[in-house]
Amino acid sequence: MSQSAEHQVAGPFPGEGAPVDARTRLVLAAVEAFAAKGFHGTTTRDIAAAAGMSPAAVYVHHRSKEELLYLISRHGHESTLRLVRAAAASKEDPAERLVAVVRAFVVHHAHGHTSARIVNYELSALSPEHQRDIADLRRRIHTEIHELVQAGVDAGVFHTSNPRMTTLALLSLQIDLARWYREEGEWSPEDIAEHYCELALRMVGAR
Amino acid sequence: MSQSAEHQVAGPFPGEGAPVDARTRLVLAAVEAFAAKGFHGTTTRDIAAAAGMSPAAVYVHHRSKEELLYLISRHGHESTLRLVRAAAASKEDPAERLVAVVRAFVVHHAHGHTSARIVNYELSALSPEHQRDIADLRRRIHTEIHELVQAGVDAGVFHTSNPRMTTLALLSLQIDLARWYREEGEWSPEDIAEHYCELALRMVGAR
Repeated sequence: MSQSAEHQVAGPFPGEGAPVDARTRLVLAAVEAFAAKGFHGTTTRDIAAAAGMSPAAVYVHHRSKEELLYLISRHGHESTLRLVRAAAASKEDPAERLVAVVRAFVVHHAHGHTSARIVNYELSALSPEHQRDIADLRRRIHTEIHELVQAGVDAGVFHTSNPRMTTLALLSLQIDLARWYREEGEWSPEDIAEHYCELALRMVGAR
Repeated sequence: MSQSAEHQVAGPFPGEGAPVDARTRLVLAAVEAFAAKGFHGTTTRDIAAAAGMSPAAVYVHHRSKEELLYLISRHGHESTLRLVRAAAASKEDPAERLVAVVRAFVVHHAHGHTSARIVNYELSALSPEHQRDIADLRRRIHTEIHELVQAGVDAGVFHTSNPRMTTLALLSLQIDLARWYREEGEWSPEDIAEHYCELALRMVGAR
């Protein structure tokens, strides 16, 4: 896959006026279909119909339904990892770094809750090789947060007897958010981020 | 369904020496099959084979694959609700009540992580009527925890600006535990319960 093609697949919002290419249309149609009916409940025909294409056209652009799921999962995890790394590197103070990470993660996950749900709950539908790739990305996200928590403990500003389990709990808040968040709910992603930053600081014993 | 038949379906461990009846065998086989291949990836034939029965026999005992999923989901949510209610009623002090609830919930969810995963992630495969039943049970569990958090705030022993969002976060820890918990992991359910009680007290601002 060329760099520019990958860029087109990765971006949910193509440049204004630019035509949405067939590969991207299929990925976006697959997100909607998997979200509505689950990976196993979705046929290639469903995806093709949602993209306004013939079932045969799907195979011209993507090897299989599983490859579409893998592209969605890889993109979701890669963008989360990038965002967590950027937020963690944006400050010096461990508490400020944690707030930056939680805020970025919550807002991103709430806005992208549809694909986040697919990315989190359809992992077992991936091929073993693709599962390993995604597990590796998840470990890197986990490591970023764990190192941040540990840095706070080492600096004497966080107080937790088990930084690794606290890291898992912090990740649980983010992951499960994609399950319960509703666009029509009373709280905006920013409202949730505000409260979750407070919860995260309490969980690591920053106050 | 008679009371005694329901009891047999509900209990994962039939009395010593008692034969496991066909209905129960099918429910247990369905738990394993749904966990391994997802609801949509599982056929009635898979369930029958795992229970050592013919595909036709499934329909003698259960109307459909969806009915099996509903039984598993209803049992899972009902037992969680019972357990949360019993723990919440076991003490007077809000902090002690919260600890009792978190401990019971974590231990139960870690031990039953296989069915908890199915119960949490296959909800969309239920019929609309069954989804409403389960949503009602989930609301009751949510209400129990929310009332407990609010009681602590009212008594001046918990300090949180948003008891309802904090309740959702507490539930996220429990729900996501079923996703990441592994029996072969280094922490026992009791180890996790210990740390999660500490996290929960921090989240509600009890200390």
